[in-house]
Amino acid sequence: MAGHVNRQIRLAARPANLPRESDFNLAEGPILEPREGEVLVRVIWLSLDPYQRGRMRATHPYATPMELGEVIVGGVVGKIVRSRTPAFTEGEVVEGPLGWQEYAVSDGSNLRKVDTSLGPLSTALGVLGMPGMTAYFGFLEVGQPRTGDTVVVSAASGAVGQVVGQISKIMGCRTVGIAGTPEKIDYIKHDLGFDAGINYKTENVNAELAEVCPLGVDVYFDNVGGPITDAVLDHINVGARISICGSISQYNLEEPELGPRKMGLLVGKQARAEGFLVGQFRNRHEEGRQRIAGWIKEGRIKYREDVVDGIENAPGAFIGLMQGENFGKLLVKVSED
Amino acid sequence: MAGHVNRQIRLAARPANLPRESDFNLAEGPILEPREGEVLVRVIWLSLDPYQRGRMRATHPYATPMELGEVIVGGVVGKIVRSRTPAFTEGEVVEGPLGWQEYAVSDGSNLRKVDTSLGPLSTALGVLGMPGMTAYFGFLEVGQPRTGDTVVVSAASGAVGQVVGQISKIMGCRTVGIAGTPEKIDYIKHDLGFDAGINYKTENVNAELAEVCPLGVDVYFDNVGGPITDAVLDHINVGARISICGSISQYNLEEPELGPRKMGLLVGKQARAEGFLVGQFRNRHEEGRQRIAGWIKEGRIKYREDVVDGIENAPGAFIGLMQGENFGKLLVKVSED
Repeated sequence: MAGHVNRQIRLAARPANLPRESDFNLAEGPILEPREGEVLVRVIWLSLDPYQRGRMRATHPYATPMELGEVIVGGVVGKIVRSRTPAFTEGEVVEGPLGWQEYAVSDGSNLRKVDTSLGPLSTALGVLGMPGMTAYFGFLEVGQPRTGDTVVVSAASGAVGQVVGQISKIMGCRTVGIAGTPEKIDYIKHDLGFDAGINYKTENVNAELAEVCPLGVDVYFDNVGGPITDAVLDHINVGARISICGSISQYNLEEPELGPRKMGLLVGKQARAEGFLVGQFRNRHEEGRQRIAGWIKEGRIKYREDVVDGIENAPGAFIGLMQGENFGKLLVKVSED
Repeated sequence: MAGHVNRQIRLAARPANLPRESDFNLAEGPILEPREGEVLVRVIWLSLDPYQRGRMRATHPYATPMELGEVIVGGVVGKIVRSRTPAFTEGEVVEGPLGWQEYAVSDGSNLRKVDTSLGPLSTALGVLGMPGMTAYFGFLEVGQPRTGDTVVVSAASGAVGQVVGQISKIMGCRTVGIAGTPEKIDYIKHDLGFDAGINYKTENVNAELAEVCPLGVDVYFDNVGGPITDAVLDHINVGARISICGSISQYNLEEPELGPRKMGLLVGKQARAEGFLVGQFRNRHEEGRQRIAGWIKEGRIKYREDVVDGIENAPGAFIGLMQGENFGKLLVKVSED
């Protein structure tokens, strides 16, 4: 085993508002021996995702909160380095929720074998992993786009948003992305082919939406909630679908933020707002993965990763993610392939 | 014609917050002669409905606002007293949006012939009219109740809520109503068969919901918005459907009220909030009407009306409606059958 210790990032304190470095601590644990029926995985890539913020709270609406001192939850890609089950062989690449650590033991029930022919290993955590499936099913199944629709996606250059926008273009929809830097806007427009981009940090989102969505908004894929969502709601069309994926603008608030009550708008617009979890489409993930992999091969879907080196840098990168500092799917490279 | 004048209630001023009597004025207009192709209708029943408040604003999200000096919009039931079209004969009973006045001329395109065998004339504005269709389609089509679901309906003794709750019982759902007086709670529980009632003016809605919806809420039929809806959202189940019919708690506010942002809750619950207008089911109203009429005949649906005598009392009754003072479908009796 690489070193003889297993470096882990543990939850030192529950963050109040935006997480701080002191909410995490880098600990050294043992590299456990797999027992009969188990495997030992060496972590290669670690996925940083906004949902992890919710698990740091003392209570969680639908998942188990982390305990203080626990290894931070998170999806990883790794390699089987020891197997005591016929289900896995050494050298196989797997993906699963093994947390922010260099090595993990698993009984295999939470591991998915990665088809390494589909793309680089990191994509199993991004465009071909949870964020890709989130985009695929949340947009197509919940958002129900139709050719010619106008689609707006927030956090548009992020792991999920970039895939939503490109599928939207494939579906023949006018596609508008909202993001927070000129570089991100430039990327979604010129590299990914979005029709328009709005920089929510420098532009008046409501006024820009009026400008770039002259026919109104038919599908809104919502990653952020808060004032950006308020603005989009002012532009929805009759029959609009709002696919609610997340609300990152709210994740670092101790108390729910107050905002204008806008649910009544859905009445006149005969519109629907629907939340979803990627897991509800679990039995169709393989279908989504194959479809996206095909689009990547055809050059119709690109992806951008934001890679941070070394597990010790995961907390700082995560804090940046909470503030939109990442540019594309945020990953931590923990060890070499 | 009964008198020789046509008494009308006109919009004198746009209400600021809760309407006042001075926002209306009782005017006397002429009884117009129908021209070729037109009919003259004598109004018998006038329907007072919460949506009318929205039309008194200077701007409206999906309908034409009333102009100052205009007759207040509203559905009526009346009798053809003069016909200059073969489409209608004198003595026929019709329903249509003829406004708060004693007589109206129409070209017939906005009139529906009332099948007087189905019930008393007033029901064409209530349980067998717009509110009944709102309840039927908004609950069954948007709410998608399933046997065994727990259903919560706000404004539960009102024109729409009372029908929603009774259809919910027919569908085999545990049915909880929210209303604002002990008499209303008593009525929905003992006369209409709701399983439980919550008085939002005297009880803690959130705590009571926990008590009377031990298995959570699967369908919420929302007539009110605001803090009551906030409370119900805290109890929704995975896969819940929120059918948004109206937001009467917000209609008399000049500025949108601030409230906790709760749309993010829909994510974990994989839940849907959908607004609707009764008109979107226009081509199926006859089906709904026949179905409700059948249930009335079978004694499975009852209805309660709150009748005010004389068109001059419409403004006061409407102001009461805005404050939940009506008990059942609010109607103004304008003339004798």
